[in-house]
Amino acid sequence: MQQELPRIGFVGLGAMGNPMAARIAEAGYTLTVADADRDRTAEVAERLGAATAGTLAELAAASDIVVTMLPSSAVVGEVLGGETGLLAGLAEGAVILEMSSGVPDMTRAFAADAAERGIALLDAPVSGGVTRARSGELAIMVGGEDDGFARAEAVLQTMGSVIRTGPVGSAHAMKALNNLVSAGGFLIGIEALLIGQRFGLDPALMVDVLNASTGMNNSTQKKFKQYVLSRSFDAGFGLDLMVKDLGIALGVAHSTGTAAPFAGLCREMWSGSQKYLGPGKDHTAAARFSEMLAGTELGKAAEEAAEK
Amino acid sequence: MQQELPRIGFVGLGAMGNPMAARIAEAGYTLTVADADRDRTAEVAERLGAATAGTLAELAAASDIVVTMLPSSAVVGEVLGGETGLLAGLAEGAVILEMSSGVPDMTRAFAADAAERGIALLDAPVSGGVTRARSGELAIMVGGEDDGFARAEAVLQTMGSVIRTGPVGSAHAMKALNNLVSAGGFLIGIEALLIGQRFGLDPALMVDVLNASTGMNNSTQKKFKQYVLSRSFDAGFGLDLMVKDLGIALGVAHSTGTAAPFAGLCREMWSGSQKYLGPGKDHTAAARFSEMLAGTELGKAAEEAAEK
Amino acid sequence: MQQELPRIGFVGLGAMGNPMAARIAEAGYTLTVADADRDRTAEVAERLGAATAGTLAELAAASDIVVTMLPSSAVVGEVLGGETGLLAGLAEGAVILEMSSGVPDMTRAFAADAAERGIALLDAPVSGGVTRARSGELAIMVGGEDDGFARAEAVLQTMGSVIRTGPVGSAHAMKALNNLVSAGGFLIGIEALLIGQRFGLDPALMVDVLNASTGMNNSTQKKFKQYVLSRSFDAGFGLDLMVKDLGIALGVAHSTGTAAPFAGLCREMWSGSQKYLGPGKDHTAAARFSEMLAGTELGKAAEEAAEK
Amino acid sequence: MQQELPRIGFVGLGAMGNPMAARIAEAGYTLTVADADRDRTAEVAERLGAATAGTLAELAAASDIVVTMLPSSAVVGEVLGGETGLLAGLAEGAVILEMSSGVPDMTRAFAADAAERGIALLDAPVSGGVTRARSGELAIMVGGEDDGFARAEAVLQTMGSVIRTGPVGSAHAMKALNNLVSAGGFLIGIEALLIGQRFGLDPALMVDVLNASTGMNNSTQKKFKQYVLSRSFDAGFGLDLMVKDLGIALGVAHSTGTAAPFAGLCREMWSGSQKYLGPGKDHTAAARFSEMLAGTELGKAAEEAAEK
Ligand SMILES: NC(=O)C1=CN([C@@H]2O[C@H](COP(=O)(O)OP(=O)(O)OC[C@H]3O[C@@H](n4cnc5c(N)ncnc54)[C@H](OP(=O)(O)O)[C@@H]3O)[C@@H](O)[C@H]2O)C=CC1
Ligand SMILES: NC(=O)C1=CN([C@@H]2O[C@H](COP(=O)(O)OP(=O)(O)OC[C@H]3O[C@@H](n4cnc5c(N)ncnc54)[C@H](OP(=O)(O)O)[C@@H]3O)[C@@H](O)[C@H]2O)C=CC1
Ligand SMILES: NC(=O)C1=CN([C@@H]2O[C@H](COP(=O)(O)OP(=O)(O)OC[C@H]3O[C@@H](n4cnc5c(N)ncnc54)[C@H](OP(=O)(O)O)[C@@H]3O)[C@@H](O)[C@H]2O)C=CC1
Repeated sequence: MQQELPRIGFVGLGAMGNPMAARIAEAGYTLTVADADRDRTAEVAERLGAATAGTLAELAAASDIVVTMLPSSAVVGEVLGGETGLLAGLAEGAVILEMSSGVPDMTRAFAADAAERGIALLDAPVSGGVTRARSGELAIMVGGEDDGFARAEAVLQTMGSVIRTGPVGSAHAMKALNNLVSAGGFLIGIEALLIGQRFGLDPALMVDVLNASTGMNNSTQKKFKQYVLSRSFDAGFGLDLMVKDLGIALGVAHSTGTAAPFAGLCREMWSGSQKYLGPGKDHTAAARFSEMLAGTELGKAAEEAAEK
Repeated sequence: MQQELPRIGFVGLGAMGNPMAARIAEAGYTLTVADADRDRTAEVAERLGAATAGTLAELAAASDIVVTMLPSSAVVGEVLGGETGLLAGLAEGAVILEMSSGVPDMTRAFAADAAERGIALLDAPVSGGVTRARSGELAIMVGGEDDGFARAEAVLQTMGSVIRTGPVGSAHAMKALNNLVSAGGFLIGIEALLIGQRFGLDPALMVDVLNASTGMNNSTQKKFKQYVLSRSFDAGFGLDLMVKDLGIALGVAHSTGTAAPFAGLCREMWSGSQKYLGPGKDHTAAARFSEMLAGTELGKAAEEAAEK
Repeated sequence: MQQELPRIGFVGLGAMGNPMAARIAEAGYTLTVADADRDRTAEVAERLGAATAGTLAELAAASDIVVTMLPSSAVVGEVLGGETGLLAGLAEGAVILEMSSGVPDMTRAFAADAAERGIALLDAPVSGGVTRARSGELAIMVGGEDDGFARAEAVLQTMGSVIRTGPVGSAHAMKALNNLVSAGGFLIGIEALLIGQRFGLDPALMVDVLNASTGMNNSTQKKFKQYVLSRSFDAGFGLDLMVKDLGIALGVAHSTGTAAPFAGLCREMWSGSQKYLGPGKDHTAAARFSEMLAGTELGKAAEEAAEK
Repeated sequence: MQQELPRIGFVGLGAMGNPMAARIAEAGYTLTVADADRDRTAEVAERLGAATAGTLAELAAASDIVVTMLPSSAVVGEVLGGETGLLAGLAEGAVILEMSSGVPDMTRAFAADAAERGIALLDAPVSGGVTRARSGELAIMVGGEDDGFARAEAVLQTMGSVIRTGPVGSAHAMKALNNLVSAGGFLIGIEALLIGQRFGLDPALMVDVLNASTGMNNSTQKKFKQYVLSRSFDAGFGLDLMVKDLGIALGVAHSTGTAAPFAGLCREMWSGSQKYLGPGKDHTAAARFSEMLAGTELGKAAEEAAEK
């Protein structure tokens, strides 16, 4: 019975939030949407047949479950708190799905605040990027209590498949650590291509060999030819967000007293890339920082060789 | 016509050489084998119906194509040179397949020496380990001239599938760089598991999430549960060999003037693992060095949690 | 006129606090002391002719200026807060000299809390170790407002010489960054000695050359022969405290978005040392971690050479 | 008796060689000079009252002792060998002082070649830079046999003070390791200044505090205010030479199997600086690479603060 579906609020209609909200709407849920950008809010509301609200507290009052998909935990904190914030408007028994990539300790604090009002907050960050957000095939990690999860599970499944990771905050830690492994694989792979190219190997050939061998990783398979050798640098996941996630991962390392030299340097290199390239770049553009250090540009050698 | 098959010599009957020589014998080639260990030589010769020889020069004199599968380029140098070495015995037009993981610059020098005597030397290192050596499904990278390759191609195909990488030395560079990417993916993955475990995440669950997400790499798929979380540490590829390969990869970086900070630290960490663990360990045991730095052992947390 | 001297409270009578409190007592100030260890408190009070107090609030009530010299900002927070804490007992116009090595952001928060009650809190961490604490020759960095500083300056001068660093928190940042440079110089120097020794150079001779050349730093001058080559490892500054300070320095880097790869690795290596060696070691023992990675012990080569 | 002084040849009249040759001439030695740049050779010869020679062999024939002060061991190899090289012209009993910063293994090979002709080759690299070269106060490390040293000691003393380091090659290793410690101290110090400045500390003040504390090193004392904060970047020692020396130091680490993670990253960072800045820069300009990574320029904050 359609009437019995929980009413959904969705805050943050960016690269990811936009297609995720669309999945929820398509599944037949009543939806109220909000974004810092009012024009975007209006556009999305119209397109999805969703409502808008004067304040976040009003959006909350019209929702049983609220999804947040925002740039950072700091922004989530702003959106939750204050007199016109989400917590002020939500009824007891409501559920917040914090689907941004966030800071585990901050998320735990948010959940504690929410719990005091009888509201369940789960962290539910995603992997898969814009493409899988559109097709509803995201990998969704979920941290938090069973009760809240039971009430929100069906909504999550409109967006992708779910893996439970443990108590609240654990999914945010997992997400950041996944991106650490992803960022490390990207960086070591790019450095290897650069060393090889300077020696005289063809980078595209190297990618093929890596993919047939033990050097294979997600970046050798899905990023190097597609976004780096092609020079398009448009995978759709921002460098600034990657640096944020690495900061979260290393923050967990530090707060747990875990020495992790390789991870530590990984973070610094990505952070250095961001400084070198400036804000607003795609994360695959980090290859250009490594190219600068190597004194060559990927693909050049191959082209030069081809010209001979 | 069986008589027209080239006669093969095979030097180095260790973990890899042994099953590779078997593949050649099974394909019907006349084979002469040699190893520093005379008992092993006799045993393999008997098992494969192969001949043995008094000296390497004699083995060479009985062969049109010689395969070397030895611990390092230094050993290859010893085996090639001198009055009783391979080069002294090979006829003009012979081919040497240097299938060890070697140092590109040394391989180039070997090839130049060989070329002076009218002998072709190709570097043909392999990826895939003992399992794929047995089944004849190795990935074989091949560097060197077309002529020599044409004469040796059929022999190579008894052992696996071939990818041409360019001039002589290029396959050895490619092999070392593949292992650099592999070693980097292993190390960053282990550090991520350790950070996560200290935070409270279950390492086996983390491996599942990584494999479903962008953190996936060859180690998350084929090593972490199998050899690390299981505490078996017996993937079959030695830590000492991995450190050697990383030294080769970074040697190429240095000789080409390629700054590669992340790759540089990767080598140092693996080298440090080797010092910490002592010689003769499996490369997957490097996880134990990272565990020491992290102050925890992978799997412990999960067990402890289970006990509660 | 002795009566007009402010009354001093001193909390934290460890390796550093003990001799620092002695300097204040010798200068004629009325002193009340406290430490977590009651026996130590009693012993110090007796030796210095100082008073003790039932609670920290009582100590505060008997003081115009309170010095804290504690292991970490977390402990300082405990000591300041609560019903029986320092802030509860201090009168308006009092000054707190937070002389521990602390976390700038936490110190700022403490100062804000104190300011609400009309109490000035200055961060005044020290450099120079136990020796210079005894002789009253510490280098004292001071952050905070001029008013509070004017009232406390004379007391600080009994312990050493003062450098103003800016607003509250700045001295704690400066202190941590000083230790970062110190830790980096120690580590790179030890690695250089190890590389040289494995090559065949005598480590003591190397220290002499470094001290006569551009490789000179505080560790080559005052630590390598004294505490490392002598194998005494008893400089008096704990490894745990060094790791804490490096964590603070890198925390400032992260919170200001400053990519600092070399500093980042420095922290991880010291943190790894701590894990390898276990708690309670002198910071100079970190050399033993580098020795493990290098596969040799400093001084061994020299001895072996001498034996020949 | 002036006639009995050995006749000196000097090859390499660059930034260092020029003032060093002048010291020898001033001490009354008969001198023959050479440089790749013929105009510079003529100018120096005229100024110092020195002779020139048609070839290096002729210079050698006119010399009992020859000093080489050249960019690299590769150039030294060119200058020594061939029909018109130094070795071809020198008489038995001659001494070569290889005062460049060189590669220990290459120097050993040069010394072996020289020894076959009865010529002693000592490595005698220097520390102190152009200023101390002018005043004859260089620190000169000397590796090699006692005999040759005895014959050349007086000449060396015209240029500075001598420290014996052991057999031939040991001084070149020591020199590279000294520069490793120097480069490490520079880099960690610059990163600390950058972190501090972004936090709000004044960089010049920080340098003062470091110099009064355990963070002191050769760079904090003699380079940061003079060449970095002043933005002059003209200490007189080239970045390219520093990167060369770090390559030598790490080459020794690798050839001796010494894992040295911090030293390894140090080399990569300096090598990256060189790529970022381009060739021909002063080594103090490496600060600009760290500034790029930190997203700020040293001194800017202070100025901005001053403007307020
Ligand atoms: N992009 C990707 O591939 C992936 C992203 N993620 C994570 O998902 C989250 C969202 O990423 P993405 O969609 O790419 O980021 P975007 O920056 O595209 O979207 C964020 C949206 O939030 C809005 N916003 C910012 N502040 C507020 C506020 N105070 N109130 C309401 N709305 C606000 C932004 O508006 P405005 O633009 O006007 O500031 C923007 O529309 C991040 O945490 C990211 O790390 C996770 C997996 C993959
Ligand atoms: N040692 C050195 O060379 C230098 C140290 N520093 C810094 O100075 C500070 C002190 O160092 P150091 O003296 O070496 O450290 P110690 O550990 O020797 O001394 C700390 C003292 O504080 C006491 N203490 C701990 N908790 C409390 C509490 N809640 N209430 C009262 N007292 C407490 C400890 O007692 P107990 O032992 O019973 O826990 C101990 O006596 C640190 O921040 C350090 O980083 C700065 C420069 C040099
Ligand atoms: N500068 C410094 O502060 C210090 C330098 N050093 C070391 O001292 C050595 C010299 O350094 P520096 O003087 O600064 O270097 P420069 O580059 O200034 O001087 C090198 C000189 O050698 C000449 N030269 C190059 N090739 C030949 C050749 N084949 N035959 C004859 N002359 C040749 C060069 O001529 P051209 O310019 O025409 O190529 C140049 O005049 C280096 O090894 C350096 O690492 C050691 C301590 C300090």
